[in-house]
Amino acid sequence: MNVPIVALLTDFGTSDPYVGVMKGVILRQCPNAQLIDLTHAVAPQHVRQASYLLGTAFSHFPPHTVFLAVVDPGVGTSRRAVAIRTDHGCFVGPDNGLFTDVLRATQIIEAVALTTPPDASQTFHGRDVFAPAAAALANGTALSSLGTPINAVQRLDHISPAITESSLRGEIIHIDHFGNLITGIGPCHWSPDSHLIIAVDDYGVLTLDPSVCQVRLANHVIDQFHPTYGFSIAGSALALISSDGQLEIAVNGGSAAQYLDAHLGDSVELRYHR
Amino acid sequence: MNVPIVALLTDFGTSDPYVGVMKGVILRQCPNAQLIDLTHAVAPQHVRQASYLLGTAFSHFPPHTVFLAVVDPGVGTSRRAVAIRTDHGCFVGPDNGLFTDVLRATQIIEAVALTTPPDASQTFHGRDVFAPAAAALANGTALSSLGTPINAVQRLDHISPAITESSLRGEIIHIDHFGNLITGIGPCHWSPDSHLIIAVDDYGVLTLDPSVCQVRLANHVIDQFHPTYGFSIAGSALALISSDGQLEIAVNGGSAAQYLDAHLGDSVELRYHR
Amino acid sequence: MNVPIVALLTDFGTSDPYVGVMKGVILRQCPNAQLIDLTHAVAPQHVRQASYLLGTAFSHFPPHTVFLAVVDPGVGTSRRAVAIRTDHGCFVGPDNGLFTDVLRATQIIEAVALTTPPDASQTFHGRDVFAPAAAALANGTALSSLGTPINAVQRLDHISPAITESSLRGEIIHIDHFGNLITGIGPCHWSPDSHLIIAVDDYGVLTLDPSVCQVRLANHVIDQFHPTYGFSIAGSALALISSDGQLEIAVNGGSAAQYLDAHLGDSVELRYHR
Repeated sequence: MNVPIVALLTDFGTSDPYVGVMKGVILRQCPNAQLIDLTHAVAPQHVRQASYLLGTAFSHFPPHTVFLAVVDPGVGTSRRAVAIRTDHGCFVGPDNGLFTDVLRATQIIEAVALTTPPDASQTFHGRDVFAPAAAALANGTALSSLGTPINAVQRLDHISPAITESSLRGEIIHIDHFGNLITGIGPCHWSPDSHLIIAVDDYGVLTLDPSVCQVRLANHVIDQFHPTYGFSIAGSALALISSDGQLEIAVNGGSAAQYLDAHLGDSVELRYHR
Repeated sequence: MNVPIVALLTDFGTSDPYVGVMKGVILRQCPNAQLIDLTHAVAPQHVRQASYLLGTAFSHFPPHTVFLAVVDPGVGTSRRAVAIRTDHGCFVGPDNGLFTDVLRATQIIEAVALTTPPDASQTFHGRDVFAPAAAALANGTALSSLGTPINAVQRLDHISPAITESSLRGEIIHIDHFGNLITGIGPCHWSPDSHLIIAVDDYGVLTLDPSVCQVRLANHVIDQFHPTYGFSIAGSALALISSDGQLEIAVNGGSAAQYLDAHLGDSVELRYHR
Repeated sequence: MNVPIVALLTDFGTSDPYVGVMKGVILRQCPNAQLIDLTHAVAPQHVRQASYLLGTAFSHFPPHTVFLAVVDPGVGTSRRAVAIRTDHGCFVGPDNGLFTDVLRATQIIEAVALTTPPDASQTFHGRDVFAPAAAALANGTALSSLGTPINAVQRLDHISPAITESSLRGEIIHIDHFGNLITGIGPCHWSPDSHLIIAVDDYGVLTLDPSVCQVRLANHVIDQFHPTYGFSIAGSALALISSDGQLEIAVNGGSAAQYLDAHLGDSVELRYHR
């Protein structure tokens, strides 16, 4: 029998006991669960960022993990609460697009709209709706018993970059703790002969020679492409591929967000000759 | 046999290994404990806030949970260290009022003044006094063996709001991660016909029609009362009932703390006609 | 059989799922591990601070603990990855001096340069190299099977304070959550007759009467020495011995970092008459 795992991702921060209380609720039903924090620092109510972060993390966990994700601007309104089963774990949270990146990489096997307990609060479904459902799944309860079957869940639009003859256009979807800028351009990887290979939805695969590429962010032009931070001059901006396969902009030994005055949602363009 | 649970609340922050070290000490005695963080971001030495946060959290945990709470301006001086058993868990920490809110909701069954180990440091009783006591309790050690029996512990004054013919006066006792302002006015709930029901110590229950109520905070007047954030206009201030039953001031989609320039300890008044 | 423990220390912060992903990787190999956060708030790439923090924490854990420490400015370059076995736990991380303080207090029994898996990313060895190695050790895998034997690892220079006839000179090696300044002067303790006993490498032990000592930090002079914070006047600076035995500068009820405008790496001098 697997040790049950519940991995949590929210925009609740850690200055309140909100996350701790959700864990208390889970332990009441599933006392031996492994409770793992993915992050609780999603920008408040920023579903796009949450979807990206969950998408980068889930595949590194054992496939029986239950992911409890709560970034929920519509709490207490009529938005649905959902639970989803896939080959790479179960996912519980509000039905607002939070699982878009996960569902680009894996498929729904079964999904339900969760039944809201009659005594649920109107402001803390993390505690009253989602945590109990996650605990039930971690315990081995059948997903079908938690609500009414549904065929599809909400997806965010404009996840993929826009492509033209000479550019890919995306945005900054995450700024990490080091100030590295993760863009929506990807997934990508290096070919054995150091070309940049980028998968683009509805297009296929783009193969680019980095020596004729540049990244534009506001009025900054970045034309250094390197496999890792330490290969660039300290204090200078470079483009690389993030550890989860997205085009990333960094400054060796510094914060790209600060150096380049960049913010979540800013436009990024990758220009190229082919 | 229950899986032992130790839930921790401190003002230690998470930038130092202080909390991790307390957990290491616990694991030496109780290797299979579930160690849960409530929060470590209590405002430094702010016992009032800590008492409130612990009061909102404890009842959601299994009743055999041990709560280890360390907000301890008097560490190393003559203030007592205590352990308390209730029907809703055991509580370990300094005797400075930290358990006031818990003890409004549940009663002391048994309490001791903890014996300080002879080799305890003078600055880190979390590691040297409280963590070992919490681990012992998690392990099933009898509370009576940890110190000398006491009948009562310190309580904070002025926890309850002051009542007049036309107002309740309290203060901001917590500002959450979203900038929502939690006030000391409560516990309250909505009646089925949308009246605000507030329990007031030494008075009983107040039943108010929210259409003739307003909340005053410095020179701001808030007269919108709603069941949840999403029912108010984006960017406008509203009053609601927090998920733990306190009167809360929020701004839909924004930070009330920022919009209203509010701080921990600021006075709040709920005015009403009856 | 011991419950496996992995204690983590990084400069990754907690706003990204990086730490959570490392834990997911560990759970895939070692599902029942106790996963404990020491801190993830080491100043970015500040190996000196990380070494100090790990040094203060490790001895409080059970001796079979695996410490996974990742502060890794050279990730993806040719710096080695190492695993070390001691009497007080195993240590896994980059070979850049991170284990200097640990190895002042305990000795290497066995060490290896870790073999890098062929599919490791170039930017996230925490996930691809160090977490798998830590999980293997937690599981009981022999250290020798994880890489090639080595006899020594990197150590940081200038860990010890410089001594003269009338002073010890060190620097601020950590500023804690309360703004207390931890200096590199130590380890020290109080003698029964209230003298300050300081061990100095290559010198032996210094015994000082605190009434003829003063601490200098920029143009501030601190001549109050006390056993704990509460013995000094609120708002005034004092010197004390930190809970892990270093000379510490604090302000009772306030932040010494703020009051004294002090920063990581600032010089500190302890002057004395003998």
